[in-house]
Amino acid sequence: MYNKITPEILDQFKQIVPEDRLISNPTDLEHYAHDETEDLRYFPEVVALPESPEEIAQLMKICHTNAIPVTPRGAGTGLSGGSLAIHGGLMIAMQRMNRIIAIDEGNLQATVEPGVITEVLIDAVAEKGFLYPVDPASKGSCFIGGNVSHGSGGPRVVKYGTIREYVLNLQVVLPNGEIIWTGANTLKYATGYNLTQLFIGSEGTLGIICKAVLKLIPKPNQDVLMLASFGSHEEACQAVGAIFRKGITPSALEFMERKGVEWVMEHDHIQFNLLDNMQAFLLIEVDGNSFDELLLQCEQINEVLEANNCLDVLLADTASQKESLWHLRRTMAVSVKSNSIYKEEDTVVPRAALPQLIMGIKEIGTKYGFESVCYGHAGDGNLHVNILKGNMSDDDWNNKLKDGITEIFELTIELGGTLSGEHGIGLVQRPYMHLKYTTLHLDIMRGIKKVFDSKNILNPGKIF
Amino acid sequence: MYNKITPEILDQFKQIVPEDRLISNPTDLEHYAHDETEDLRYFPEVVALPESPEEIAQLMKICHTNAIPVTPRGAGTGLSGGSLAIHGGLMIAMQRMNRIIAIDEGNLQATVEPGVITEVLIDAVAEKGFLYPVDPASKGSCFIGGNVSHGSGGPRVVKYGTIREYVLNLQVVLPNGEIIWTGANTLKYATGYNLTQLFIGSEGTLGIICKAVLKLIPKPNQDVLMLASFGSHEEACQAVGAIFRKGITPSALEFMERKGVEWVMEHDHIQFNLLDNMQAFLLIEVDGNSFDELLLQCEQINEVLEANNCLDVLLADTASQKESLWHLRRTMAVSVKSNSIYKEEDTVVPRAALPQLIMGIKEIGTKYGFESVCYGHAGDGNLHVNILKGNMSDDDWNNKLKDGITEIFELTIELGGTLSGEHGIGLVQRPYMHLKYTTLHLDIMRGIKKVFDSKNILNPGKIF
Repeated sequence: MYNKITPEILDQFKQIVPEDRLISNPTDLEHYAHDETEDLRYFPEVVALPESPEEIAQLMKICHTNAIPVTPRGAGTGLSGGSLAIHGGLMIAMQRMNRIIAIDEGNLQATVEPGVITEVLIDAVAEKGFLYPVDPASKGSCFIGGNVSHGSGGPRVVKYGTIREYVLNLQVVLPNGEIIWTGANTLKYATGYNLTQLFIGSEGTLGIICKAVLKLIPKPNQDVLMLASFGSHEEACQAVGAIFRKGITPSALEFMERKGVEWVMEHDHIQFNLLDNMQAFLLIEVDGNSFDELLLQCEQINEVLEANNCLDVLLADTASQKESLWHLRRTMAVSVKSNSIYKEEDTVVPRAALPQLIMGIKEIGTKYGFESVCYGHAGDGNLHVNILKGNMSDDDWNNKLKDGITEIFELTIELGGTLSGEHGIGLVQRPYMHLKYTTLHLDIMRGIKKVFDSKNILNPGKIF
Repeated sequence: MYNKITPEILDQFKQIVPEDRLISNPTDLEHYAHDETEDLRYFPEVVALPESPEEIAQLMKICHTNAIPVTPRGAGTGLSGGSLAIHGGLMIAMQRMNRIIAIDEGNLQATVEPGVITEVLIDAVAEKGFLYPVDPASKGSCFIGGNVSHGSGGPRVVKYGTIREYVLNLQVVLPNGEIIWTGANTLKYATGYNLTQLFIGSEGTLGIICKAVLKLIPKPNQDVLMLASFGSHEEACQAVGAIFRKGITPSALEFMERKGVEWVMEHDHIQFNLLDNMQAFLLIEVDGNSFDELLLQCEQINEVLEANNCLDVLLADTASQKESLWHLRRTMAVSVKSNSIYKEEDTVVPRAALPQLIMGIKEIGTKYGFESVCYGHAGDGNLHVNILKGNMSDDDWNNKLKDGITEIFELTIELGGTLSGEHGIGLVQRPYMHLKYTTLHLDIMRGIKKVFDSKNILNPGKIF
């Protein structure tokens, strides 16, 4: 079905991209054979590091002509295996395309290349008084291109929305090597099918993003952070909905369960007064331009927390206190990873269904013999479920666990939710897509893929 | 290519929808032969008024089998001819599907049928303390289904985003008569291609919306409205960008030119102290939960306005003062319509390019001999251009004007904008699509259409 990259084809690549930006020896390829998804390894045959859309377009044309599979890759921080070259072929890695091309202060827009690190952009626009609020936990290393491809979120989605609300226009190289802009640099767009929105979350299967025009907003100059502890997961989750019903939209509303906090404390040698009855935590941030207004909101939130049997509230108002609370949340994935072999699911349900989701996950764990650590963006109903191998046998882990994950997804769907909120489907969630979608629905997705990529050469074998 | 509705097919319709909900006599069809677009008239052969998704699905199946074109119709308030039955056939009109099925206070979501009037929903959720911020000028009569199909906006987009940010999930009948839900009722969704987003703005060409699940947000309990007058369009437009650079995001930021204000005054017999040097106006609203904070924002806005040569600022803080200022803006389209035969374009550019757009439109008007009245959502760079027939000959109006409109769109695109911000392409903007898109780009849209509607029976002849 696909062809290998022959020495002749490699020579054609060299006509476009100089040899020092083409990687083909196994040692150097190792870095590109994995992302952050479990311990998967798939080697591309060649990795190219292009520096312009035109180079990407020319590489794509050669691959299109020769039926070579192409896998686009950002920073390799993905959690669903979307950037793994499962059919070999050419990997196009974006780290050399890392320029912030423009920050347009008149229009509150930034134009960036896909290899810009998310936090680099956040800091660059903050210097000018702007907020780019899409900040996944991996913001210090992940790339904007990967964020767009996964419809990324992060803690601030609850107030500011996902990246979907910040991408105005994309320049993409299509699988046939043609370059198009998907839309216009405008805040509104009712001009035919919205290809910009279609590309967001399409996981590099429809085209390769070469430039993104992003919306910025004025940066609020104040924020307050609170950590609330609860005696049960259910009480913590119920408080989440109650905060919104009080008329408050926090700028972050994160859930952490006790075990996650314990592991971060252990991993990073942190002192924290963790009492025996504290089983779950909410990290709650409010932001704005008036400190008085924020304190009023904190008081209102406090009332809600008390009414929901909160055990204790820590209020952080210095930068270092805030940083240490955020550290708890942001390093949870790393701490879990260092403690156990694990698989991570990215369940999302309507916010009010969170208590049922967590209880259900624990019950399914008991049934299948796995422990789990759950944390995530409670304000969005988005719960990251870290399933721990612990004492499970290799056979149970590799085979029987699939049924447990199936049950988790069935529960998620039954509660009105879906398989992934922000990590994408990629390779590892793909076997579960039939749980969410009918064959007709999947056929529509495949049909759309075919419109863009009739030879199925771009990131094949992902999503569906 | 298409078949007519024979008496036999009509009999099949009657098996599904009772006779009193099937319209086929010319007098009653007249209402369905036009929308709010110029004076166009296209008669469907039959209009059905279904009451359930299942009825729509069965009607679609008959039309699919018999190659009958189908035109979905909301309230008929469209400004681009999207709901005109240009090939005859069956029109499916949604006014009987007008239930608010649920307002879910736990999740801040509403589930509605497509025939719910936008303002009815806004009021219903406001009673429970929630805001549904998508309020096009026609909110008193337009339907949610039409709003979704056009990616609607309105004045509050500038702070709250378009309907695109509020649609979580759609139930649709596909052209083959199958029913699917496009997504899930969640705030985040990274589960394959986002069909929900693809349906938004697809103008009834991919499927018929039968239910929409919409996101709600807490309703701010305070707002302040200001009307600022300027000696030139350019100064007004420049003030727009300066307000954002000051760090303020107003909840509305509307532009009106003098002639529009004059015509509303004349049309509605309004007294207003319109001085000779006032050439342009900005209507500026801020909202929030702290009146002190809003007054502070108004002071900051005042500083910006003064620095941009504002002539005068009216501050409205009573409900009746606010209503009369909003009335000026909201009735502008009606007033223009009552004064002259006109065509309306829905140009949108990056915000900072507005002064160039307005100047350019006036120059093109001089060249082609037309006057125009411009107003719209300046905060979004979205300018409604009302081209007046005035003294133009019928021949110039019907033929030569096309070149003038072409020049307006060429200018819009040159400034980084596009053909429509919120009205859609429909029938009347369709001839200009090649100005914005390459053939390849249009072929991609046509390819997507074909995936959903291989027989091209659903709203054919629209968009591309």
